[in-house]
Amino acid sequence: MKTNSKILLIIHGGAGTLPKSATTSRSIDAHNKAMKKALLEGYGILQKNGSSLDAVCAAVKILENSALFNAGYGSVLNQKGKVELDAAIMDGSTLKAGSVAGVSRIRNPVLAAKFIMNYSKHVMLIGRHAENFVLRHGMKLINSESLITSHQYEKWQALKIKKQDDNEKFGTVGAVALDRHSNIASATSTGGIMNKAPGRVGDSPIIGAGTYANNETCAVSATGQGEFFIRSVFSYDLAAQMQYKNLSLEVASTHAMKRLASLGGKGGFIALDRSGNMAIQFNTEAMYYGYINENEIIVVNH
Amino acid sequence: MKTNSKILLIIHGGAGTLPKSATTSRSIDAHNKAMKKALLEGYGILQKNGSSLDAVCAAVKILENSALFNAGYGSVLNQKGKVELDAAIMDGSTLKAGSVAGVSRIRNPVLAAKFIMNYSKHVMLIGRHAENFVLRHGMKLINSESLITSHQYEKWQALKIKKQDDNEKFGTVGAVALDRHSNIASATSTGGIMNKAPGRVGDSPIIGAGTYANNETCAVSATGQGEFFIRSVFSYDLAAQMQYKNLSLEVASTHAMKRLASLGGKGGFIALDRSGNMAIQFNTEAMYYGYINENEIIVVNH
Repeated sequence: MKTNSKILLIIHGGAGTLPKSATTSRSIDAHNKAMKKALLEGYGILQKNGSSLDAVCAAVKILENSALFNAGYGSVLNQKGKVELDAAIMDGSTLKAGSVAGVSRIRNPVLAAKFIMNYSKHVMLIGRHAENFVLRHGMKLINSESLITSHQYEKWQALKIKKQDDNEKFGTVGAVALDRHSNIASATSTGGIMNKAPGRVGDSPIIGAGTYANNETCAVSATGQGEFFIRSVFSYDLAAQMQYKNLSLEVASTHAMKRLASLGGKGGFIALDRSGNMAIQFNTEAMYYGYINENEIIVVNH
Repeated sequence: MKTNSKILLIIHGGAGTLPKSATTSRSIDAHNKAMKKALLEGYGILQKNGSSLDAVCAAVKILENSALFNAGYGSVLNQKGKVELDAAIMDGSTLKAGSVAGVSRIRNPVLAAKFIMNYSKHVMLIGRHAENFVLRHGMKLINSESLITSHQYEKWQALKIKKQDDNEKFGTVGAVALDRHSNIASATSTGGIMNKAPGRVGDSPIIGAGTYANNETCAVSATGQGEFFIRSVFSYDLAAQMQYKNLSLEVASTHAMKRLASLGGKGGFIALDRSGNMAIQFNTEAMYYGYINENEIIVVNH
């Protein structure tokens, strides 16, 4: 099989306003460490001629398992004090996709999305039915409370007292990758918005909104105020501007962000195309992101 | 307020292979009657300078209440013998949207989607949480079994014995409208695919897949094999081809259908733009559709 020497993995850990606690050197070090681990894990797969799909899943799994991000373990709590997780993956070489929303007993929703893509004729499964589906295909279900960290529980309790929403901090995670076969893929995973209504589904598990990949255009993973990314069909809008206006990834990205902002939406995204071009943009105070290629490993936490 | 003399409402009642029972004159008459009722109901709103959003909701509500279509009352049953409904609406003048998936105790999911758009800061709510949300806002919940017709129950039992899927007949309903204020809107409602996995979400409630509306381009409601409409981001793809390639509604529609077919997807859609152009296309054996404007009321059931 013809292989491409260029391999690339980009990850993000959410866009928003940095909480004060995140600006201590200790916190920065911890985030750096987790993001580097995710980058190295995914990149290892790409180096061994593995698929971009496997690489994004592996990287996102690491971030889900870290308590520092709002995905998997350490996710935010909804109005009822429960964790409800959403995730999606898309394979740019086949346009196959898998998506899961509103699950509470799955440690790694990104892997559940992969199970659905691989073993179901459907793209999207929700709630306990999604949990039962992956259970039947060999995935272990966990106690939902084991996903809750004391840090998130305390934040949620403080928020309940203030009776306001926490719109400032997001922490969705995602990854996009290019493999040696010139295939690209995308994955996104999230706990959603702190204190969200139970049953709320954001953009992460919506193909074309928070997650999209197509070898012909680009792979995108977004983060931010999900409702605006849904209404602007953000990720596919970016891809469509490349395809139908013949724009470069960078210019299409800028246009898509302007369109999002014109609706009042805040957030950011990571994207790449099969030539190895990258786009990383956000209109929030900050976005956690990092990338790794043959030359460098970069992590930005500010 | 400046008003546009052109008003238009298009509806569909699903695309697929016609069951033999649908080709009797009695069945054709019954479908005709239900579709005309839906058209007249929605058109009445447009005539009184009502909004396209209200018109599409009213038309879809009539189709949901008819036992003849796979939406609301008379929906297909999933693998467990239960009804699970999905619906979405989008307002082309504001790009606001509401969506509901996996609900079983709501008679009119299209109205639930409207409640979510109007009363929630979220776009999409799922399952019993969506039910509880609309209940809190004054909508009555019903016994899920009251949505099941003996006809659908018998079909489901026959299917269980054959142990195969019924991919031939769809029956999603939808509507797109143009009002006197030159605003357009879209609504889609469905029971999904007969014998679907519990928890499966199709394209209908996914903004950009089965439902999309934007005054700048078009309003679209799709029907067919939902997974392909999700993976091709069908409705937004059609809109994007108008916006980014300056194509007419008709040409963009043909391109979007080709793209869907290239993935192997079957189905159809209805669409209109704010100039009152219409597009109605399908690559299945048949699609139920109809439209009404100042000159005529047309219903096609073949």
